[in-house]
Amino acid sequence: MNRSMIRYILGYVLTVEGLLLLPICLAALYFHERAGVYYLAVALPALACGLLLIRKKPRSTVFYLKEGCVSTALSWIVLSLVGCLPLWLSREIPSFTDALFETISGFTTTGASIVANVEGLSHCALLWRSLTHWIGGMGVLVFLLAVVPMIGGSHMNLMRAESPGPSVGKLVPRVRTTARILYLIYMGLTALELLFLLAGRMPTFDAVCTSLATAGTGGFGVRNDSLASYSPYLQWVVSVFMLLFAVNFNMYYLLLLRHYRDAFSMEEVRCFFGMVGVAVVLVFASILRQCAGVFDALTQTVFQVASVVSSTGFATADFNLWPDLARSVLVLLMFVGACAGSTGGGLKVSRLVILLKSIRKEFGMYIHPRSVKKIKMDGKPIEHEVVRSTNVYFITFMLVFAGSFLVVTSEGGDLITDFTAVIATLNNIGPGLGLVSPAGNYGMFTPLSKWVLMFDMLAGRLELFPMLILFHPAIWKDMAADRKKKLRQ
Amino acid sequence: MNRSMIRYILGYVLTVEGLLLLPICLAALYFHERAGVYYLAVALPALACGLLLIRKKPRSTVFYLKEGCVSTALSWIVLSLVGCLPLWLSREIPSFTDALFETISGFTTTGASIVANVEGLSHCALLWRSLTHWIGGMGVLVFLLAVVPMIGGSHMNLMRAESPGPSVGKLVPRVRTTARILYLIYMGLTALELLFLLAGRMPTFDAVCTSLATAGTGGFGVRNDSLASYSPYLQWVVSVFMLLFAVNFNMYYLLLLRHYRDAFSMEEVRCFFGMVGVAVVLVFASILRQCAGVFDALTQTVFQVASVVSSTGFATADFNLWPDLARSVLVLLMFVGACAGSTGGGLKVSRLVILLKSIRKEFGMYIHPRSVKKIKMDGKPIEHEVVRSTNVYFITFMLVFAGSFLVVTSEGGDLITDFTAVIATLNNIGPGLGLVSPAGNYGMFTPLSKWVLMFDMLAGRLELFPMLILFHPAIWKDMAADRKKKLRQ
Repeated sequence: MNRSMIRYILGYVLTVEGLLLLPICLAALYFHERAGVYYLAVALPALACGLLLIRKKPRSTVFYLKEGCVSTALSWIVLSLVGCLPLWLSREIPSFTDALFETISGFTTTGASIVANVEGLSHCALLWRSLTHWIGGMGVLVFLLAVVPMIGGSHMNLMRAESPGPSVGKLVPRVRTTARILYLIYMGLTALELLFLLAGRMPTFDAVCTSLATAGTGGFGVRNDSLASYSPYLQWVVSVFMLLFAVNFNMYYLLLLRHYRDAFSMEEVRCFFGMVGVAVVLVFASILRQCAGVFDALTQTVFQVASVVSSTGFATADFNLWPDLARSVLVLLMFVGACAGSTGGGLKVSRLVILLKSIRKEFGMYIHPRSVKKIKMDGKPIEHEVVRSTNVYFITFMLVFAGSFLVVTSEGGDLITDFTAVIATLNNIGPGLGLVSPAGNYGMFTPLSKWVLMFDMLAGRLELFPMLILFHPAIWKDMAADRKKKLRQ
Repeated sequence: MNRSMIRYILGYVLTVEGLLLLPICLAALYFHERAGVYYLAVALPALACGLLLIRKKPRSTVFYLKEGCVSTALSWIVLSLVGCLPLWLSREIPSFTDALFETISGFTTTGASIVANVEGLSHCALLWRSLTHWIGGMGVLVFLLAVVPMIGGSHMNLMRAESPGPSVGKLVPRVRTTARILYLIYMGLTALELLFLLAGRMPTFDAVCTSLATAGTGGFGVRNDSLASYSPYLQWVVSVFMLLFAVNFNMYYLLLLRHYRDAFSMEEVRCFFGMVGVAVVLVFASILRQCAGVFDALTQTVFQVASVVSSTGFATADFNLWPDLARSVLVLLMFVGACAGSTGGGLKVSRLVILLKSIRKEFGMYIHPRSVKKIKMDGKPIEHEVVRSTNVYFITFMLVFAGSFLVVTSEGGDLITDFTAVIATLNNIGPGLGLVSPAGNYGMFTPLSKWVLMFDMLAGRLELFPMLILFHPAIWKDMAADRKKKLRQ
């Protein structure tokens, strides 16, 4: 295990986080808020520690997938532990567990909040929450890859560990260029949404926070009713951008290259919009009678469907009060989630497509036992390894889900709340049904349940294995062996 | 597609069903019930049709897995369609859909009932319901294989399509001998339970019905409160036998051969009892406070856990009223189910073991990317094909579950009821939570939901693919091609 390389990466993560806390201090000056002091008090030591850790370059640059996984998992844990300090120290969220929950929920772009009265938070806290979404959406290590000259073969293994989806397609041969292109598209779309929101006369602060949270498909709002009190125009803008951020970013790259045909024939994106279409029809038919009219019903449907399928978690209606058909459609969408290569969470549409194709292949083997067919996607055959690991991913996902559900439900609460709370955190969505509906929050869970849900958020964001591998004894044996070797030298 | 062979098998199925209806007519004579007329009125035409169909031997004996699947699925459909007629014609269950639901629930050993007042049914109906469990438990085609001299290579493909579990182990080289041994063990255990029940002074009729229903892991009872009003001794007897019928029958064969070490080291059986043990501890701790004492709590816990895990569905307590921890443990057990090669339903323990081992293998590949390890079970490596199809099975299972849940829930009702109704039918358990709890029944579902649940029961009993393959266009194209060829001759 290359511990010095992991240390080096953690150093950079701390440095970046220190730098990101500084704009919050500026916001504090602008809004004349004393809370800014705490952000500065965390930013400076974080910067100092970070710079100290990166002063010494790592001795070895050998870096395998397991090191990629471990450093990604540790980066996200460090990021969250440091990020929650200002919220806790400023007493805006008095409990450490709650502050950490809120921060992990932010970075993992879940948007599950333990704060009942969001409007009581300072501007600093609100902005920081939204900023965590934006950083977490595309990934902090992808950001590092884009700006820091890394050494050795670490690039791809870091990117694979942090990026969502069954197989990370490098857009261009160089990982660094890929990371830059992704971040440029990300920033461009965020800026575009900001402009559209400002054009609809959303207050500037709200517009900034909403854009950041939409881009990361996060879901923290700045108002107690999430986005319900904004105009239909603003709701439609956010709906459209939630869907745009849930699309595989490869499509935008293809569009930038003017490969329009390739872009619009992407199988995953087509399935995604097909699924959204079906869901909209079902939900619309289900809620039409209880809405003020066709336009109102459509606005509410599209917003909620887009919010759930993109795993954002904004709300303009308390869908917990909707008819059962609408609620079950939303629960099923929660399981599926967004496209791979987007900022959204969930199982990912491409995984679902691969799973469906494995089933079709199995049928084929019943009918023509000797036929050997490879599963194809976008016309290209998929490696057997990818199919296998997609299958295993799904199984692991269901088992993590079942285990978490068992622990959370053992602490009491009703089954619907617990069931949807686990799926909403594991898939980084945010609100669920029952007590964690858009009208509720996660404050009432016991500390044990909160820790389980925090684990689920991180495991969901990092696609299970990087997080689970931390619990594998072989990793710790490796670490210990490395330490002994170092001591002996 | 070998249509003449399929016809031949269906002929035998009808003949067997006709013969099985005759003992009910005798019971009618004994109890002086007029309902017996309807059983005779169905038995004789079924026998006649059956004998007519088997008069002509099939022209070709070529028989592939797809034919095995299709004839199995059709056999079960015919079996249920004919079997429901006496219940419907006698007006004991006035609606045809309901009568079919009850019969499918019987043959698939689900035990989900639409009858609110079981005690109002005639002895004929009660005995027929229990007998369907017993026939369905080990499988009607396995029975045919045991007694009918079949021709050609049809044996294994029929057995594979009807028997539960990822890979059917032939006990001995000859399929026919295997089927006979299985049925002998099955009959022996059933008789043993009957003796134990009679020794505990259970009324003879009740004891016969209960033994048949336990053996098939069915769950239809003869009293409105299922088994709650029997003595603790009788409840313990049934608990033990429910667990025994949920164990892989290979173990009993090994015991008969006095291979004790092999029998007790079977990985699946050990995992099964480990799981049961953990579940008992959790449920016991959860319900202790609301029970009359430690012994009462233990009796209730073991009975309900055994009933759910073996997919029987008897009840001595309305576990819908239990604390959430106990309820979620039971829901998770519902998903797992019994051992492969038993009469129980569910995903099967051996599948779960294989799934867990695939996950462990995936971890191994993160840590040592170049290692190639085969998954082992009972010390023997498992074929790659078995692992793959187990993975695909799990995925298909979850998708069938999600699809059924969506349809059922679109018809109204609360989410817990719908969720557990789907899992309780798909895994052939019987009762769920909410309105389908042991205190409730399935009568309130709409016809559409009932048809979906009927499909789920059949799909669950036949392990998905034989049932799903009926909807594959290639099968019908094949059938049509075969018919054309025949017409041309």
